[in-house]
Amino acid sequence: MNITVLGCGRWGSFHAWYAHSLGHHVTLWGRCGSARLQELIATRKNDYLQLPPDIRLTSDLATALQGADICIISISAQQLRAFTSQLKGSGNALRMPFILAMKGLETGSGKRLSTVFEEELGPQVPCSVWVGPGHVEDFINGMPNCMLMASKNKELTKMLVNIFSGSLIRFYYGSDLLGVEIGAAAKNVMGIAAGMLDGVGYSSLKGALMARGTHELACLIKAMGGNAMSVYGLSHLGDYEATLFSRHSNNRRFGEDFISGKPFGKLAEGVYTAEALMDLSRQYDIELPISRTVYEIVHDKKNPFDELNQLFLRSIKKE
Amino acid sequence: MNITVLGCGRWGSFHAWYAHSLGHHVTLWGRCGSARLQELIATRKNDYLQLPPDIRLTSDLATALQGADICIISISAQQLRAFTSQLKGSGNALRMPFILAMKGLETGSGKRLSTVFEEELGPQVPCSVWVGPGHVEDFINGMPNCMLMASKNKELTKMLVNIFSGSLIRFYYGSDLLGVEIGAAAKNVMGIAAGMLDGVGYSSLKGALMARGTHELACLIKAMGGNAMSVYGLSHLGDYEATLFSRHSNNRRFGEDFISGKPFGKLAEGVYTAEALMDLSRQYDIELPISRTVYEIVHDKKNPFDELNQLFLRSIKKE
Repeated sequence: MNITVLGCGRWGSFHAWYAHSLGHHVTLWGRCGSARLQELIATRKNDYLQLPPDIRLTSDLATALQGADICIISISAQQLRAFTSQLKGSGNALRMPFILAMKGLETGSGKRLSTVFEEELGPQVPCSVWVGPGHVEDFINGMPNCMLMASKNKELTKMLVNIFSGSLIRFYYGSDLLGVEIGAAAKNVMGIAAGMLDGVGYSSLKGALMARGTHELACLIKAMGGNAMSVYGLSHLGDYEATLFSRHSNNRRFGEDFISGKPFGKLAEGVYTAEALMDLSRQYDIELPISRTVYEIVHDKKNPFDELNQLFLRSIKKE
Repeated sequence: MNITVLGCGRWGSFHAWYAHSLGHHVTLWGRCGSARLQELIATRKNDYLQLPPDIRLTSDLATALQGADICIISISAQQLRAFTSQLKGSGNALRMPFILAMKGLETGSGKRLSTVFEEELGPQVPCSVWVGPGHVEDFINGMPNCMLMASKNKELTKMLVNIFSGSLIRFYYGSDLLGVEIGAAAKNVMGIAAGMLDGVGYSSLKGALMARGTHELACLIKAMGGNAMSVYGLSHLGDYEATLFSRHSNNRRFGEDFISGKPFGKLAEGVYTAEALMDLSRQYDIELPISRTVYEIVHDKKNPFDELNQLFLRSIKKE
């Protein structure tokens, strides 16, 4: 099949590499002027992988979409709404299934990425999400993982799972798109919290973080009309190894660096997600103590040690 | 208060140290001939900690029980039933609350430890369990954690929580004793599975292990009449950091050493728990794929690589 991957960062380049490894014809698009794309064109390599010569590289969106049977989008979550305008303006008919291989919630609205996508492109464009654990570094080294494909349409989900299953990635089907997307996004916030615990020397509290973090998000998902149990599946809890414990995790490292005052190039996606979760906390009147603590430490510069102590070690409560 | 700790291994000695740090009068008992007790008597130290001089050390059970307001039992889980005979034969009236600070299930019956305790000593002896995350090594270094106290009697639980809360340990109350005990015991089995994943180079699958491990135990707890959600609290999921990821975890290390063929001095408690879970799987007709895989690799010498592959990476399923 013709697979087009939109976005040529760490994950985008991996998706191109992976689809090619399954035998597909792959086009990888990066925006005009993207330094990452230039590097790939010049060297066929980035910090993570080497692209086979027959993966086509382009910065022309119309070319990238032309003839694509399936499109995988892997860009920064906050850019999705603006990017959909580019898609609409590309002159191509958008009838192929799109897969959102990204995790986040829109700041200012708290909206899920599939909601943003559908609002902009309409419900007639098939849309699925591809989430769950795994690091590019591990996959490239042959370490397999289980991931999750979810959409509103069971037949679409099944079709995509069959196309993208291989020895490196075993898929589970998800049926609760809402819970899967909230959980997948929010795990980055828990990743930042884990990094903060590492930073203040409280790594042992990651156990409590796992138990309490899943709990607050289960309450939110339930209030939003999703299945509370989704948070305990691969999209959220199943991604904790990769997010709360791995040295490869961007969000965990951001939390640790934030505590130690190290300068960081750009904010981790979980920072935006924490902000969006504050919108959802208000909209659905659900307390999100851990997400709020991350938000207040990063945005309001509250004292991390005091806040984390308050969160985990003060009052005595029923579970 | 007068606190007696029965069992002077790693955890028993910690409980004595901890109760003393809260200002209690502490007696620590070890069985006659115990090398650990001899070491403590001779040096006041073991590999983990130093005992203050006013903690009384004894191998005489009657002396240890005399005047005790609360007894904490911390011995090997499989020895509990035999140990209760010693308690009955000690000549002391057993009216004080007992706390089972240990994790396991009885092999051959699959019974919980509080059930074994009550069968032998009767329901009139108050009994609680103290479970949840934390490593002795971390506590001694001042790293705090959240733990869980649970019993059938809410007033007893509250009283014990108030007595044992301190800056090192924040307690949550548990109300589902069945779910808490099954979860606390079974986390050691998941710890062995995690070590096996480390051993075969599949550490990244610990995310999937967390999602699927909690799921199978939630099903079991529900079938047994407990609250399925207990498994997602501190007693099980909240103990995953300490069990699945920590270098201090006995059970994780056992799993890793088992794969690499390293000789081990004694079986990890999770080996017995896996066996007991097979009893429960039969009794309640609940599939426990991960627990069964651990059992079959250890007991039936099945090939770990094949079994773990089969478990996580074969068929495609709904979550």
